[in-house]
Amino acid sequence: MIVLGIDPGTAATGYGVVAGEPFGSLSLIECGVIRTTARDPLPVRLREIYDDVCELITRHHPDALSIEDVFYARNVRTTVVLGHARGVILLAAEQAHIEIHEYPPAEIKKAVVGTGAATKEQVQFMVTRLLRLKSVPQPADAADGAAAALAHIMSARLPRIGTVQGVNHSSSRKGSRGASS
Amino acid sequence: MIVLGIDPGTAATGYGVVAGEPFGSLSLIECGVIRTTARDPLPVRLREIYDDVCELITRHHPDALSIEDVFYARNVRTTVVLGHARGVILLAAEQAHIEIHEYPPAEIKKAVVGTGAATKEQVQFMVTRLLRLKSVPQPADAADGAAAALAHIMSARLPRIGTVQGVNHSSSRKGSRGASS
Repeated sequence: MIVLGIDPGTAATGYGVVAGEPFGSLSLIECGVIRTTARDPLPVRLREIYDDVCELITRHHPDALSIEDVFYARNVRTTVVLGHARGVILLAAEQAHIEIHEYPPAEIKKAVVGTGAATKEQVQFMVTRLLRLKSVPQPADAADGAAAALAHIMSARLPRIGTVQGVNHSSSRKGSRGASS
Repeated sequence: MIVLGIDPGTAATGYGVVAGEPFGSLSLIECGVIRTTARDPLPVRLREIYDDVCELITRHHPDALSIEDVFYARNVRTTVVLGHARGVILLAAEQAHIEIHEYPPAEIKKAVVGTGAATKEQVQFMVTRLLRLKSVPQPADAADGAAAALAHIMSARLPRIGTVQGVNHSSSRKGSRGASS
């Protein structure tokens, strides 16, 4: 299973492409950051994010997209702009008929570190360890992208209670996180 | 000048294609609503909105997209989802190299009715009148799309103070509303 994990942002969208099985080994294929210029108009930045995500999909043929959910609002304007970025990322995956899974930040932390209250450093440490890397992926946004990918693969390790195994029939749905609560 | 006006929404995206000149006659080419199903996953709905907007652009070759701005938050979740929809609409216009203009709802009302505090009914009345239609465009979202298109054409009637006439060089910018304040 190859998973493209994305931590969306308008200035910096972190991504990580991870190959692995829930109970097998995990390996990092590629990670990095899609950067856009704050001075550019939003539509230009959205096209850049869209084009780069399309390119990643073409290059790695991932089975699934795992993306951070953003329905909170520390700063409403920032969150709404982030919604724009997520919109074009979801579109790129949907057009490529890739399974889409959305996870709140706390679920990604919980899947990777074991607790939803994990710090950024703890997440980076576990990403480095799980992927048997020599150092923490840089910059931090790239590690967050890899964490999103890992979270999707590792969430399948959790026991599924009350969910049918064959639920992943749709090319894009929310909430296939394995009912572990 | 042909302008595609859009009032974005996830359930219903109203649009109106208007031809006209700031000081000439105005005519409605087409208006309607792009509807998506609430039960469908967000990525599917975004693809539908994107595909329909691309089709409108291909059919009418508009010179500009005029779209409602949404940086307010009555309901944060709704606003963020709306951000996703706006993202794919802006992407469609940017890919087609169309000028993009974003107007807050109050500016659209002001350009069409004369006051930013105009009611929905006043906007519908003026849209009907300006476009010399026999009845109000239905449904209401279609009229809102037409109002966005009209607002862009009519904002050019306002005196431009302190702006250079040749500012529309970029294929997509915010804030080319003619500094009339």
